[in-house]
Amino acid sequence: MAAMDQAQGMAGRDETAKGDKTPRTERGRRTLRKLLDAAAVEFGERGFHDASISGITRRAGTALGSFYTYFDSKEEIFQALVRYMSEQLRDHVTPIVQAAPDEIEAERIGLASFLGFVREHKEIYRIIDEAEFVDYASYRRHYETTVERIRQRLEAGAVRGEIRSDVGEIHAWAIGGMNVFLGMRYGLWDADADIEAVAAIANDLLANGLKRRD
Amino acid sequence: MAAMDQAQGMAGRDETAKGDKTPRTERGRRTLRKLLDAAAVEFGERGFHDASISGITRRAGTALGSFYTYFDSKEEIFQALVRYMSEQLRDHVTPIVQAAPDEIEAERIGLASFLGFVREHKEIYRIIDEAEFVDYASYRRHYETTVERIRQRLEAGAVRGEIRSDVGEIHAWAIGGMNVFLGMRYGLWDADADIEAVAAIANDLLANGLKRRD
Repeated sequence: MAAMDQAQGMAGRDETAKGDKTPRTERGRRTLRKLLDAAAVEFGERGFHDASISGITRRAGTALGSFYTYFDSKEEIFQALVRYMSEQLRDHVTPIVQAAPDEIEAERIGLASFLGFVREHKEIYRIIDEAEFVDYASYRRHYETTVERIRQRLEAGAVRGEIRSDVGEIHAWAIGGMNVFLGMRYGLWDADADIEAVAAIANDLLANGLKRRD
Repeated sequence: MAAMDQAQGMAGRDETAKGDKTPRTERGRRTLRKLLDAAAVEFGERGFHDASISGITRRAGTALGSFYTYFDSKEEIFQALVRYMSEQLRDHVTPIVQAAPDEIEAERIGLASFLGFVREHKEIYRIIDEAEFVDYASYRRHYETTVERIRQRLEAGAVRGEIRSDVGEIHAWAIGGMNVFLGMRYGLWDADADIEAVAAIANDLLANGLKRRD
């Protein structure tokens, strides 16, 4: 469960306190998710500095006390939110990618589903990008874990003989950057772009490169 | 001249005032550049909120009055700085790219020179990325103009028959994203990475794609 994972994985709190703040009931997990979903809207709309804990609990429809059951500060819920969004994205894309018949197709479907996710969660760019200034470790971890998943897919595809055998980390960072920029341009900025067409064109670049095919 | 271009192109100041603040002498242009170079260090080290005008003039070795000869506020020099850095990057990469024998090679050399630029100007990521929060129009313009230059190179390369004839804006955004992420990973985060090797591998992906070449 993403919400639990991130609460457990939280840095800057000692092990005991961390254990104390992990929700133990389904109701508690629901409240935690409500707070994180509300935090996504609050930080997404207002930015870190203007966002407030009372704004988050108001949006979540919870008492202020509920916030402090799970988080000590605005910094802490922001850090948890970056991980939560990163995991939501992973959970959205992973099953779709895993159902693909081969690695080239997995990257096409992965990009299309990412572009769809951005359309539905436009706040993801602002939140992840603001982490660069609020909590650099979270920012870096988001990209490192996302790119590592791409690298593992590439490697598995190479082992299965679907793509070149020399793929590695550099290719994974290139693909990650490609996806993030296409998401910004065609998911975030352009609500009318044909997401499937963008993914198909980018995937053809990825599969075949720019060289003339004569 | 980049510094003049950006002073002239500044938004939020009426035409007359703008004209008044453009340096008319070589000495004035030198002072303006000193202020912008100092602003890059100040904003790069401290971030927008903690940076101060007095910090900028101290680093530039100029009087506070000099600052107000060219800028009205911290917001205004930040906006000018984003454009200045964007133009410095363009001026660094463009002649190198134009000397390339063909478009595929142009993209390889362009990426290698970008990675080198990042190593020398590590503050560029923090400054451009902070523009997303301080001045979104500048942030977006930086990427749009950078990607538009890539698109024009691709189109010219296609006309010369060096690459596929169906290249366009989507390919340009994909390449822009690839370069920015490779710059972050191997230019900014990893001071020891072999920049030429990274550029060669990414360029081979761009030229030939991921499909097995049997």
